[in-house]
Amino acid sequence: MRLKVAVLAGDGIGPEVTREATNILHAVAELGGHEFTFVEGLIGGVAITDSGSPLPTATLDAALDADAVLLGAVGDNKFNSLTPDKRPEAGLLQIRQALGGFANLRPSVAYTALAGSSPLRPEVTEGVDILFVRELLGGLYFGAPRRWNKETNEAINTMRYTRDEVVRVARVAFELASKRRKKVTSVDKANVLEVSQLWRATVTEIAKDYPEVTLEHQLVDSMAMHIMNIPRNFDVVLTENLFGDILSDEAGVITGSLGMLPSATIGGAVNLYEPVHGSAPDIAGTGKANPLGAILTAAMVLRHSANLEQDARAVEQAVLKVLEAGYRTADIARKGENVQLVNTQEMGKHVHQAL
Amino acid sequence: MRLKVAVLAGDGIGPEVTREATNILHAVAELGGHEFTFVEGLIGGVAITDSGSPLPTATLDAALDADAVLLGAVGDNKFNSLTPDKRPEAGLLQIRQALGGFANLRPSVAYTALAGSSPLRPEVTEGVDILFVRELLGGLYFGAPRRWNKETNEAINTMRYTRDEVVRVARVAFELASKRRKKVTSVDKANVLEVSQLWRATVTEIAKDYPEVTLEHQLVDSMAMHIMNIPRNFDVVLTENLFGDILSDEAGVITGSLGMLPSATIGGAVNLYEPVHGSAPDIAGTGKANPLGAILTAAMVLRHSANLEQDARAVEQAVLKVLEAGYRTADIARKGENVQLVNTQEMGKHVHQAL
Ligand SMILES: CC(C)[C@H](C(=O)O)[C@@H](O)C(=O)O
Ligand SMILES: CC(C)[C@H](C(=O)O)[C@@H](O)C(=O)O
Repeated sequence: MRLKVAVLAGDGIGPEVTREATNILHAVAELGGHEFTFVEGLIGGVAITDSGSPLPTATLDAALDADAVLLGAVGDNKFNSLTPDKRPEAGLLQIRQALGGFANLRPSVAYTALAGSSPLRPEVTEGVDILFVRELLGGLYFGAPRRWNKETNEAINTMRYTRDEVVRVARVAFELASKRRKKVTSVDKANVLEVSQLWRATVTEIAKDYPEVTLEHQLVDSMAMHIMNIPRNFDVVLTENLFGDILSDEAGVITGSLGMLPSATIGGAVNLYEPVHGSAPDIAGTGKANPLGAILTAAMVLRHSANLEQDARAVEQAVLKVLEAGYRTADIARKGENVQLVNTQEMGKHVHQAL
Repeated sequence: MRLKVAVLAGDGIGPEVTREATNILHAVAELGGHEFTFVEGLIGGVAITDSGSPLPTATLDAALDADAVLLGAVGDNKFNSLTPDKRPEAGLLQIRQALGGFANLRPSVAYTALAGSSPLRPEVTEGVDILFVRELLGGLYFGAPRRWNKETNEAINTMRYTRDEVVRVARVAFELASKRRKKVTSVDKANVLEVSQLWRATVTEIAKDYPEVTLEHQLVDSMAMHIMNIPRNFDVVLTENLFGDILSDEAGVITGSLGMLPSATIGGAVNLYEPVHGSAPDIAGTGKANPLGAILTAAMVLRHSANLEQDARAVEQAVLKVLEAGYRTADIARKGENVQLVNTQEMGKHVHQAL
């Protein structure tokens, strides 16, 4: 098996956690006799500093030429005064658009070993296994017109969806649900927004092609509550772009730390893989960053781009083992628990050994 | 003290909980020698059924003629197939707009007696006292253009804010914070949305007039997580319309039930009071509805429209007493706890007695 991975480590803790993730991919390649090659590129704040652009052409070319893109994190407070189109995050939105992946998969799983790290009671989180399918190329993030007019002191953004955009992401959700617990919860605000009415009608229509899957609709406000109250009720959660951004971060409290959450964006020319956490500039370089989100993201590379399901599971099992052995980065270490605090690199090594 | 209250009980559990709230207002009037008068009006689904309009002119006139409007709940699945402008919820949005209140205050408080009802650990919720200030007349809810074009299969909504709209609601937040723990957390998505950049810049500017209040900015996705992880960190949380809708419902899990949460909308011609919960058609008429959200909303009427701060506190204390005495409606009763299950009316009576 050959796989060419474009590695865009980005800002803040991006490089530190990505290093551990690529180490694991190296290890998997060696163990399995695969040939994984890695090409590096700049994105985000580091790219702006280097060349003035958050997504330089060279990076985009390398990404489009690869079989998979592994991203670290993007964002740097240094650029907070710039308009959205010039900020590090613009590089992220541009590469998402250029690669064309519209379905962002974000698993939110409760690990028994980490039950103490969640603000939720263990009896609430036990057994939770949610897969968010977040539409990633539409809605307020990309809709035009968009502007902040400093003369009139008015700003607008546009939430826009077409039926086709909803159809394709809904199909991904139903396909995935049919291989899981066969339930899709579609999130919208159909009691107020026309866009949500299109969303709901379209999802309802597509559901007919998947009679084995149960569809339920939830309003985004109720859903924000239900995910905390009864997370076990959910299997696949289908959302538009912004609602998925908010709810999948919220669901991070089920696992106990954003640092644990992986994501994969599929459906386009090249799949894009990024941990859910941000660049966390406050802890960059301190060794406090949790590389498990990036490592679990690497597992998703194996699953969705290399078709190495067994290896993906092996990596996930290795992460579980390390947690059960009591190793913790700062974000998942609870006072009073008998655990061993390790830094980013050490955590990576423990996963490697457990493999 | 004289006060004319327009009572719009609305749909589902609206009438049952509003009855208990007006009973309490009657009791307060009697105890204090005040003259409270009540005028009833139709809104939402019941109004559509009656006259075809979710906000009949007679209702609007009664509301505009009153000193305060007390609303129950609006929403009926029967009308799910109608477009947003024809649904029960349109009546709610129209009356919000007609009354002109732009600052929706939503307290989210942890009650020790209910700690067991929250999915959050008691040590996380202990002492939490957050006040959401949600902008209620702008953003995606009201922005034009808005449409679902069934020929082109495309739908759009517009998120729009002007500087003035942000200024006035920000001032409310800072004023309130200066009388509380002196912290405002402003929520936006300034790394992506132009509207959020206007929001952030404006709030930052207004903060200068309140040097005693600390301002922090949070991205809406991170905030969805922080409210669950470290709710005690927040005092006043200032948001635009949709973000406030989502986050204030989410924060309901701190109290343990949406059924406990009151709200007041101030700043317009006539203040509007509504519990945060919806019409809950599944339990309407069963006596299961929790009237405490509506009763605490009545307390907000006393505070913000009648200037009867002491009476407002007395009602809030009475609610606390009843909870501490162990009375619970179904939504806040936990199995295994030694509590007494009561219905909507009984709960209202217990609060009345405790007064
Ligand atoms: C950095 C930001 C643009 C991004 C988003 O909102 O999509 C992030 O929050 C995420 O969820 O991947
Ligand atoms: C019913 C609906 C229109 C309303 C809103 O979204 O504002 C409700 O959810 C609320 O929060 O008061």
